[in-house]
Amino acid sequence: MSAPDHIISDQIIIFDTTLRDGEQSPGCSMNLEEKLRMAHLLDDMGVDVIEAGFPIASRGDFEAVEAISKAVKNATIAGLCRAVKRDIEASFEAIKCAPKRRIHTFISTSPLHMKYKLQMSPEAVLAAIADSVEFARQFTDDVEWSAEDGSRTEDDFLARAVEIAIKSGATTINIPDTVGYAMPADYAAKFTMLRNRVPNIDRAILSVHCHNDLGLAVANSLAGVAAGARQIECTVNGIGERAGNAALEEVVMAMRTRPDAMPFKNHIKTEMITKISRTLSSITGFVVQPNKAIVGANAFAHESGIHQDGMLKNAQTYEIMTPESVGLHRSSLVLGKHSGRHAFKTRLQDLGYGLSEEEIEDAFQRFKDLADKKKTIYDEDIIALVEDETGRDKDNIKFLSLLVQAGTRGPQIATIEMDVDGTRQTAMCEGNGPVDAIFKAIRMIIPHEEACLQLYQVHAVTGGTDAQAEVSVKIEEHEKQVVGQGTDADTLVASAKAYIHALNKLMDKRQRTAPNATDSTTESMASVEPSLTAQERVGP
Amino acid sequence: MSAPDHIISDQIIIFDTTLRDGEQSPGCSMNLEEKLRMAHLLDDMGVDVIEAGFPIASRGDFEAVEAISKAVKNATIAGLCRAVKRDIEASFEAIKCAPKRRIHTFISTSPLHMKYKLQMSPEAVLAAIADSVEFARQFTDDVEWSAEDGSRTEDDFLARAVEIAIKSGATTINIPDTVGYAMPADYAAKFTMLRNRVPNIDRAILSVHCHNDLGLAVANSLAGVAAGARQIECTVNGIGERAGNAALEEVVMAMRTRPDAMPFKNHIKTEMITKISRTLSSITGFVVQPNKAIVGANAFAHESGIHQDGMLKNAQTYEIMTPESVGLHRSSLVLGKHSGRHAFKTRLQDLGYGLSEEEIEDAFQRFKDLADKKKTIYDEDIIALVEDETGRDKDNIKFLSLLVQAGTRGPQIATIEMDVDGTRQTAMCEGNGPVDAIFKAIRMIIPHEEACLQLYQVHAVTGGTDAQAEVSVKIEEHEKQVVGQGTDADTLVASAKAYIHALNKLMDKRQRTAPNATDSTTESMASVEPSLTAQERVGP
Repeated sequence: MSAPDHIISDQIIIFDTTLRDGEQSPGCSMNLEEKLRMAHLLDDMGVDVIEAGFPIASRGDFEAVEAISKAVKNATIAGLCRAVKRDIEASFEAIKCAPKRRIHTFISTSPLHMKYKLQMSPEAVLAAIADSVEFARQFTDDVEWSAEDGSRTEDDFLARAVEIAIKSGATTINIPDTVGYAMPADYAAKFTMLRNRVPNIDRAILSVHCHNDLGLAVANSLAGVAAGARQIECTVNGIGERAGNAALEEVVMAMRTRPDAMPFKNHIKTEMITKISRTLSSITGFVVQPNKAIVGANAFAHESGIHQDGMLKNAQTYEIMTPESVGLHRSSLVLGKHSGRHAFKTRLQDLGYGLSEEEIEDAFQRFKDLADKKKTIYDEDIIALVEDETGRDKDNIKFLSLLVQAGTRGPQIATIEMDVDGTRQTAMCEGNGPVDAIFKAIRMIIPHEEACLQLYQVHAVTGGTDAQAEVSVKIEEHEKQVVGQGTDADTLVASAKAYIHALNKLMDKRQRTAPNATDSTTESMASVEPSLTAQERVGP
Repeated sequence: MSAPDHIISDQIIIFDTTLRDGEQSPGCSMNLEEKLRMAHLLDDMGVDVIEAGFPIASRGDFEAVEAISKAVKNATIAGLCRAVKRDIEASFEAIKCAPKRRIHTFISTSPLHMKYKLQMSPEAVLAAIADSVEFARQFTDDVEWSAEDGSRTEDDFLARAVEIAIKSGATTINIPDTVGYAMPADYAAKFTMLRNRVPNIDRAILSVHCHNDLGLAVANSLAGVAAGARQIECTVNGIGERAGNAALEEVVMAMRTRPDAMPFKNHIKTEMITKISRTLSSITGFVVQPNKAIVGANAFAHESGIHQDGMLKNAQTYEIMTPESVGLHRSSLVLGKHSGRHAFKTRLQDLGYGLSEEEIEDAFQRFKDLADKKKTIYDEDIIALVEDETGRDKDNIKFLSLLVQAGTRGPQIATIEMDVDGTRQTAMCEGNGPVDAIFKAIRMIIPHEEACLQLYQVHAVTGGTDAQAEVSVKIEEHEKQVVGQGTDADTLVASAKAYIHALNKLMDKRQRTAPNATDSTTESMASVEPSLTAQERVGP
């Protein structure tokens, strides 16, 4: 799997599509503030290209891409669009404020997709490629073209399509394995074929984009690189449509761990991998399984047994990468009941939080409350404490207090007190179990009959019966999903907070999608059609 | 990636090591009853070889391998052992009742492992291979030999080791990628090298065993098969040391989906994949992430959006395998408040449960209780209801009732009533949050000061605020872990049940490992040393 001789650069471009392919997978939607947090982390981590969204897909997508374009300093911002003028215009409109911008346009090239999805003839598809890429080049000289379902496209047609795309001005050519069907050998063969047959192939960078339906996304990505691709499209935690995309952390650590087999460079600061994985997981409520490579809780868990034994003279016996290389540090007892403001502040800085004095004071008060209840406070507790409040000052609905009576001996009753737009409101409700009672009481104060609870999950932040509970809830209304989180030593309080958090997001979403919304971005969207259907939203 | 010509058989042996490599990973331990349930499912699914455990490792392992050997009808039962006589004797002692039995012996062959782990010279290792395999062959003519850390072993030495193992009688030769370091090309090259250089290689079946540290376990396994291996060692959900092993469901579905690239057969009934995945997940409390290939909640989730649109003329546009092929059927509203005993019984049979009349009656009562609280009852609810009680009739500690007062306005207090060995006992306790209060109250009745809560997680079985909560708790005492589950419409009741379930298992474990335990298997273990250290337990 060594690189062919005539590939000049050994630099691999890491193209992250967590905010586009990842975000559009069921249950992974993020709001503007959450996308911005992720974009900043991706930029800090050294990602070369951030695909920030699919601007034509919805107003929310458009706004997010625009906001990320204004906020991000280093990475190129890409906006996805179909081979349609209004898509391309919307894409550019959204990314135009970015210091470095890329239009990423795609169209299907496989016989199956052309016939059933596009209902277009192959010749019409070729014409659309030329038109769309040329049109995109009028806006920016960084244009990526993707052959959707490329891995199932016939060689002759793919070679013609790629030649036309490059001739029309595409600077990056992406061959996605859209349905996760490829095997490493045949995926690599596609790139070799293109490099052998397309006369102008040296004028573009080749790119891989692999889905994990058969568990082969990472292997396929690396096989593509070995065959000449120099860009890898991937996502944090491997989120994405169906079984997801190639996981950024896996492709990057494979290259870092096996430079002998994969002699390539990239700009990723791998020490940020653990943090970004946890942030994404917390935002989406999407768990990472314990046996997930690189970022699963057990990925480095062999250590304990081995160290206990004191038998092992050489860590490499079972360890091919260090936990530190992905920013994983052993949990340590950092603070307790008697820790002062200064120690807490220092710890926050060590954990990478740059908070204002006011935010620190606020977090410190919550830390003291927690320390009253919990003997030992770990890094994870502090992270949960801070993340729990991030971006919640603007919330219109706030949790105040809760009283619950539950168990098998009588009715389960919850009394909740909330602050709604500055007014204190109370409701008492009976339910099937305490959580049901709490949610019903909240629903009495803020009616939202059409919204349905999709997911409710709880996990303890650390071990011990006095651990903080981290609750995630997902609410769906009219096919729009929001995720809320809440953390508290009391599971029921955490549940109430999580539900209220989700409700705030839902209200925010309702407002944004209301027909008479008049925020600033509406103007720039004037030329843009409202939104795509679920089917149209499926990208490469 | 097509098979070389001179490989005669296109039959792939599926060797499942969920109960050995999977079970020994942190947090995945199962008790005897749970291992038996898994073994029966694996056997029904068509697995060729079940590696049931590491008999010398502990009395629990020995008993489990012995019980599985007596219970399983079709699959070969393998017992793992180091290259040591007492290990091999124990292994055979444990599997001897199986209709088909295999001794699986291993020793490290890489320079690093020989020097630091074994502290043996290469010549001594070769002698140990000959001795151990010959000794094993005295008990059975089905002997597998594994070269631990084989992927990092020098070619010359590996070829010599393999030749000696085969000459000594090994019928299967396994080359594990113990640390998950291999790339598909170099892993395949090892098999090609062996087939070219080892003169007696045609007298043994070659086997792959891959770990997923870099996300390449499935690709490496398939690359090994393409290069001549005819046995795949794998686990359900890909559990196993660190990032786990190659997932059984992924290797099997890759071969089924791509017969053109991988023209091989196997005996797996893929329609059982979803059921076995969920059972394992429920037993261990190990979650499967939504974007996990084949068995993740989102793996087939593209369907809804596409079908909603009604746009898609051909499912293959985005679907390379059907949900039905892995036994995934859409949730359907099956039963409600007014459903009778007969409908319930029929539904249980459709879901694959063969329960006694008494068990059905018991489950039906619980179904009626649930139907009073929950409007719509799905298949998942019925599964949770039945699984919740499986094997609990022997429990010495039983949940009776619970009363909880919680919230932010006062102390959190739990009063629990339990049946302990036939005596009704009650305790009331204050705690930090209702769950803490409940667990403390249980601890007052059954003191277990040295046990520590390692994991507490809750998820809703289906959507809606009236969904049943499924709680998993993991308790650790003296490095022994037990997992308990509880299901109820009331999260707090489910939490109490889960904790009590775990406690029953812990008591059972204490009894089994007590020095004066005198159960029947103690005798057959007379020649066996007590247990291995964590380091010694690490297998291939």
